[in-house]
Amino acid sequence: MATNVLEINAERLWESLERSAEIGRFRDVGLRRLALSAEDKQMRDLFVDWAKTAGCSIEIDRLGNIFARRAGSDPSLPPVAIGSHLDTQICGGRYDGILGVLCGLEVVRTLNDRGLSTKRGIEVICWTNEEGARFSPPMMGSMAFAKVLPLESVLATTDEDGVTVAKALDDIGYAGPAPLGDRTFDAYLELHIEQAPVLDREKCDIGIVVGGYKTQALRLTIKGDTGHAGGTPMAMRRNALVGAGYVIAAVNDIGLAFAADEGRTTTTRIESFPNLPGTYAEQVKLTIDFRHIDAARFVAMRKEVDAAIAASAKKANVEIDVEEGWRWGSELFAPECIDLLRSTAKELGLPYREMRSQAGHDAYAVATMAPTAMIFTPCFEGISHNVNEAIELVRSVPGANLLLNAAVARANR
Amino acid sequence: MATNVLEINAERLWESLERSAEIGRFRDVGLRRLALSAEDKQMRDLFVDWAKTAGCSIEIDRLGNIFARRAGSDPSLPPVAIGSHLDTQICGGRYDGILGVLCGLEVVRTLNDRGLSTKRGIEVICWTNEEGARFSPPMMGSMAFAKVLPLESVLATTDEDGVTVAKALDDIGYAGPAPLGDRTFDAYLELHIEQAPVLDREKCDIGIVVGGYKTQALRLTIKGDTGHAGGTPMAMRRNALVGAGYVIAAVNDIGLAFAADEGRTTTTRIESFPNLPGTYAEQVKLTIDFRHIDAARFVAMRKEVDAAIAASAKKANVEIDVEEGWRWGSELFAPECIDLLRSTAKELGLPYREMRSQAGHDAYAVATMAPTAMIFTPCFEGISHNVNEAIELVRSVPGANLLLNAAVARANR
Repeated sequence: MATNVLEINAERLWESLERSAEIGRFRDVGLRRLALSAEDKQMRDLFVDWAKTAGCSIEIDRLGNIFARRAGSDPSLPPVAIGSHLDTQICGGRYDGILGVLCGLEVVRTLNDRGLSTKRGIEVICWTNEEGARFSPPMMGSMAFAKVLPLESVLATTDEDGVTVAKALDDIGYAGPAPLGDRTFDAYLELHIEQAPVLDREKCDIGIVVGGYKTQALRLTIKGDTGHAGGTPMAMRRNALVGAGYVIAAVNDIGLAFAADEGRTTTTRIESFPNLPGTYAEQVKLTIDFRHIDAARFVAMRKEVDAAIAASAKKANVEIDVEEGWRWGSELFAPECIDLLRSTAKELGLPYREMRSQAGHDAYAVATMAPTAMIFTPCFEGISHNVNEAIELVRSVPGANLLLNAAVARANR
Repeated sequence: MATNVLEINAERLWESLERSAEIGRFRDVGLRRLALSAEDKQMRDLFVDWAKTAGCSIEIDRLGNIFARRAGSDPSLPPVAIGSHLDTQICGGRYDGILGVLCGLEVVRTLNDRGLSTKRGIEVICWTNEEGARFSPPMMGSMAFAKVLPLESVLATTDEDGVTVAKALDDIGYAGPAPLGDRTFDAYLELHIEQAPVLDREKCDIGIVVGGYKTQALRLTIKGDTGHAGGTPMAMRRNALVGAGYVIAAVNDIGLAFAADEGRTTTTRIESFPNLPGTYAEQVKLTIDFRHIDAARFVAMRKEVDAAIAASAKKANVEIDVEEGWRWGSELFAPECIDLLRSTAKELGLPYREMRSQAGHDAYAVATMAPTAMIFTPCFEGISHNVNEAIELVRSVPGANLLLNAAVARANR
């Protein structure tokens, strides 16, 4: 390695991850730390405390996004930002999002250890409600920050108990005074566990993320009519749940058919009404999504999904309304940032592969307003959104060092 | 007609149905009058008031089952009971259950009009929570009365808001002093809309119900594992909702395959966890049922359903636990009561057909403790458990007159 190469303190990073893993512990090894919950507040407080101890100034915006800045030598220049999230899924793991924030903090701590200053500041960001497990949609904080979502509608969004985002922010004291989105970044870097098994299986420790899978979510409203579970002849039935069943089966079959060339389909949320044992459903809401690495194949998938929905509607004698949900494309990240990661990895002698993200990330929204790229690190078998999410420290450190050195290089540019 | 033939007052019956249709009116033409709700209380109060005005004594048992008795000339003899229910589905109609109770009341009123006394009393019964729309299972009041369900577990059953049956009974003042099940009936007759389109389509106004379809409900617990909707390769997924989708599709296909010879399959209630857009389901609970008029074909259906569940589990890479839910058989009713209905119909010159019920009814539980039979009357196209449930008065009166004359004949036996 070149003499000017920096290395993070792996033990300290691990200790911080372990501290985080105590806050909202769920089913022994996992986390349930829903956005803006008491556990989220506790973790936020700890992060703010750590960041202040590391000499950072803290700003919090209206949506509770936290910006912890280590000042640069030229305060007139926008900082290099490093961010991710501290909230988890309802049966989540310890690393999804959290590793990225704590690696950002570790960058600051390492610079402090070495007494190094950078020309541009380094800003570590925790985005609010990336997971969308309590308040929908996911990536709420970063999307509102990037003006992809309007602030007022986000504040009015409610959880299952009818609590608004505005109230939840007040309750935990994280409705900050900083204006939303009124910040510029020289660049934005995000490190994240891959949440897919490619790096783990290929024994490669670094993924340089050049973009995302083409992804489209669809929210279906399946409209039938209630009727008696016993007496209604099969031919007269318009059971919305049967429509949903045919869609779920067909959409999964499409995913299996496209699996060999990196296609994915998922059916996730379902809500049925009236959802009672003696009567069948007049309406079902169903969320599905499909993803493909290749744009042309993605179009082919869409065609098959549309045909499957139409065929299911006909077979179940129901109507299906299709509303487009979240969608993101393939070319997300800035060539200048991708090049920076490539050249830094080469300089550090770190093997990497280039890849696309199959998941959504805060980086997608930030990429609309600042040059952005992501680093992936391996997680066991790609298991994520599951308490059994696992990483090996030794396989996470190379990515963290890439983040550190790339951020410093960019900050000193 | 023979000179001793009695006829109900059709206009008065219709007026009573119209009064009932105002209590819990839902979506203009329907009813939402959930068991033990404020609307149920209002309807119960009205029924009790009507019954008292008609000279009945009222007894209410621990579960709120109401017994309105018109005394017979020999008080030592058990009464002839006529019952059904006043609660409705969540998007229910005006006649399901209600017609049966109000025809019972009309029997009493007609006897009063004529100044006729009977040897045995006539007891009109409203069973609590037949529908199961607020508290599960359906037919709760009659099943607990017949000791098919234990009282304590019924009282502890909660609705979606955690309110117990015991509390709901207290709240509306219908936890009565009469001991549960401590009554004998000389016979039990129940008139009900058919809830299937046979009578309507055949232009026949009376169905003498000789039994029920063989019916079996299954409660499935589909066990997979949560994971990330984007990153998890198709082959690694254990999406419980996909398992449910395959089951729903296959079970409906089985229903369609058996439809020509009177088979039915239904999938009704579904609950998925965690039911969030970015992560797939680790567990889904699904209720299905299947019915057939023929016992051997019913066994064949069960075989196909079991095979479909196993195949769905394999295809979706999930486990499916199967718990048997409600179940009833084909030979439910007492030959002596069926014969009484047949001979009375012939005497009255009323055309009828014999049939089996496709739906569940309070009569099934009562049949375990008293000679029982049912009368079906037509409803438009068999639509039921739906606000558009509709009857024609002129086509309901023959069944009501059959009930009246059969009950009186039995009571004077």
